[in-house]
Amino acid sequence: MKLAVILVEPEYQMNIGFVARVMKNFGVRDLILVNPPEIKGEAYKFAMHARDVLENAKIMESLNDALAVVDLAVGTTSIVGKKYIPERAPLKPRDLKEKLREYPGRVGLFFGRESRGLDNRELELMDLTVTIPTSGAYPTMNLSHAVAVILYELYDESPCEVKRSLEPATWQEKEVLVRIWGELLEVLDYPKDPVRKEYFKIIFRRFLGRAFLYGREAHSIAGPLRKAVEELKRCRKC
Amino acid sequence: MKLAVILVEPEYQMNIGFVARVMKNFGVRDLILVNPPEIKGEAYKFAMHARDVLENAKIMESLNDALAVVDLAVGTTSIVGKKYIPERAPLKPRDLKEKLREYPGRVGLFFGRESRGLDNRELELMDLTVTIPTSGAYPTMNLSHAVAVILYELYDESPCEVKRSLEPATWQEKEVLVRIWGELLEVLDYPKDPVRKEYFKIIFRRFLGRAFLYGREAHSIAGPLRKAVEELKRCRKC
Repeated sequence: MKLAVILVEPEYQMNIGFVARVMKNFGVRDLILVNPPEIKGEAYKFAMHARDVLENAKIMESLNDALAVVDLAVGTTSIVGKKYIPERAPLKPRDLKEKLREYPGRVGLFFGRESRGLDNRELELMDLTVTIPTSGAYPTMNLSHAVAVILYELYDESPCEVKRSLEPATWQEKEVLVRIWGELLEVLDYPKDPVRKEYFKIIFRRFLGRAFLYGREAHSIAGPLRKAVEELKRCRKC
Repeated sequence: MKLAVILVEPEYQMNIGFVARVMKNFGVRDLILVNPPEIKGEAYKFAMHARDVLENAKIMESLNDALAVVDLAVGTTSIVGKKYIPERAPLKPRDLKEKLREYPGRVGLFFGRESRGLDNRELELMDLTVTIPTSGAYPTMNLSHAVAVILYELYDESPCEVKRSLEPATWQEKEVLVRIWGELLEVLDYPKDPVRKEYFKIIFRRFLGRAFLYGREAHSIAGPLRKAVEELKRCRKC
């Protein structure tokens, strides 16, 4: 497993600096900033001896650009309420660690804005979501504290050998599968309600994320689905 | 176990505020400050919604005063080097959690100054010491990050309600899915080779197994697949 920390539209330089510092504390080097404020002296001040992490940070313009460079997208959220779609029940950090134990691909840990986190649309793009169990009296952690806790949990003191025989499905390969699934729902017009159709797509995406799909598997699932869509379309015409 | 966080001669109000915030995040109320700077607006600013923790903080003049109000003193340190007395080899946070599991008394978690932590004389007064495993490249964490990690580890969550509302898919539900997938491959006659067809089924089954599917999810995936099979069969007839 190779980790990258991705801050989506971080608002405060201080937090970016603190995140760089805690990344270095836990041996994580890859920082991606999506639409950050200008990185100046303040971020460097709080990064302390993690100047290098900040200097090497990649700046990207959209969440999709960041998704494109990871194999598994893990979104963090503090919102686990009634509004939350139960199928998207987030993992606890320890369960995430278990899940990733032998994962050979590149994992992106996505953290949202200080003020409002990742929005639902963004969370829907994630393969997995994770939440830190906190007190109901004040569940919202500071951004860099949340990064500290997740990286602490994932920190592997004794590096173990990665199984390289299988290539994990990339985010794009999984997106292709989700798209084909969407086309299948369209051509079947099932379920009829567009909201439910969208919901069925989200469930499918989550399910792919949790399954740690390998590239070869993705193809063996995409193939029949694609063929089904083609035949059903042909069928509709005749 | 009842926890108190004790900051020994903290230097920056910002960190005191951040510590108050993360304490409230993890349901810890008792904050003791030994010789702090004056607590003013800045500390409150970073405490955010943990104003009450700051307001109720006890200010003490010496470490001994703080030691007197706890039953078990746990000192934190990032210095685990050759200079360290081996008998005092610090625990990892998880081991500390185990140790404290059924401890009925009042536990004081002592954190030192931002610049130099707790000194050896102070650490000698502790019942236990704890250190967070970090990278040798930059072992020193920010004070509030260290508090976040320790409190996260010790936080005793009541079982997650979200997960309980979900029933995992039963073996039978997954078998139904595998069977429908098999029917889809049959009706498409894809892949043509029966051995590969079987192989595609096996992959699908494994994939379901790894995904920790929930019952409702199983249905939302089975539905469209079943409908596709039905339509394709009808299509073949006409």
